[in-house]
Amino acid sequence: SGESEEEGDVVAGVKVPVVRLQFGEVAESSRVVILPVCKAEEKDKEVMEAPWECESEGEFGVVVAEKGWKRWVVLPGWEPVVGLGKGGVVVSFSDARVLPWKVNRWYKEEPILVVADRSKKDVEADDGFYLAAMDGGDMGFKVERGSALKEAGVTESLGTVVLIVRPPKDETENELADEDWE
Amino acid sequence: SGESEEEGDVVAGVKVPVVRLQFGEVAESSRVVILPVCKAEEKDKEVMEAPWECESEGEFGVVVAEKGWKRWVVLPGWEPVVGLGKGGVVVSFSDARVLPWKVNRWYKEEPILVVADRSKKDVEADDGFYLAAMDGGDMGFKVERGSALKEAGVTESLGTVVLIVRPPKDETENELADEDWE
Repeated sequence: SGESEEEGDVVAGVKVPVVRLQFGEVAESSRVVILPVCKAEEKDKEVMEAPWECESEGEFGVVVAEKGWKRWVVLPGWEPVVGLGKGGVVVSFSDARVLPWKVNRWYKEEPILVVADRSKKDVEADDGFYLAAMDGGDMGFKVERGSALKEAGVTESLGTVVLIVRPPKDETENELADEDWE
Repeated sequence: SGESEEEGDVVAGVKVPVVRLQFGEVAESSRVVILPVCKAEEKDKEVMEAPWECESEGEFGVVVAEKGWKRWVVLPGWEPVVGLGKGGVVVSFSDARVLPWKVNRWYKEEPILVVADRSKKDVEADDGFYLAAMDGGDMGFKVERGSALKEAGVTESLGTVVLIVRPPKDETENELADEDWE
């Protein structure tokens, strides 16, 4: 049903929030978070090299990372994002079909951001989601279920997925999407 | 008078907007801007080394700089900030007394952000404001009037000041400030 597509909803059996960014939402937030971004196409080495610590400095909330980085994103102060300590990172995927659950045809037209916590690498929950390197090394990233990683004998991931962000969409398009449900 | 202290107001004879950031404000407009930040205490070399180009990439507005940088700030999409092309930079001063106009005692308690355009270095307007290196080289930055720089024979600055940002303040404090005007 269309229900699982609604903002902030949790897809059945998926223990990670999936939210759709609203147009202007970042600007209206009373608190924003800046996070370093890696592209999914990059080697998995990059996600470990992105700055781990981003402290907020002074009255203007200037963000100071422990080292330089060139790709950043501003997100609203959503709970899972604000709760990130050291190790928070965003991986941008050009295609939402990377998500390991039943998808519909709209997914392939949508990029997504996966927010992960690199300080939580252990594969613990079967129904949790983890950022993992593609088989074969320098092939980039994927999002995997805990159960799938365990079956493959993987006990350590690149990080636990805490949030998945979908891009803003025109309201008209949203309505169409709901009607066109597969 | 207290008038010149109001949000968005222009101090008499000063051709640069001075705005106070509101608590929770990231914008009245629906967009935000991420800019690289330099500390005024750093050598003036740093302001020239901060990334010049920050492009917005894709539907999430991921900012991609041409090189890594570790200090960033998110500002509301104010006109002078949105209008910045390549070369936009923010210098954080711990003390607003750096501003070269009549100040009151509140200034010393306030840090400010100076937004400058490094692509406009020529000292042109007498009543314009410019980011300049402190005399003696490695002493950091100052904000100077065009007329003062011209008198000193300086024709090239580090950049034209386009906006000055004051920190958010409690409303109660604001009222007190107005009463306590010098």
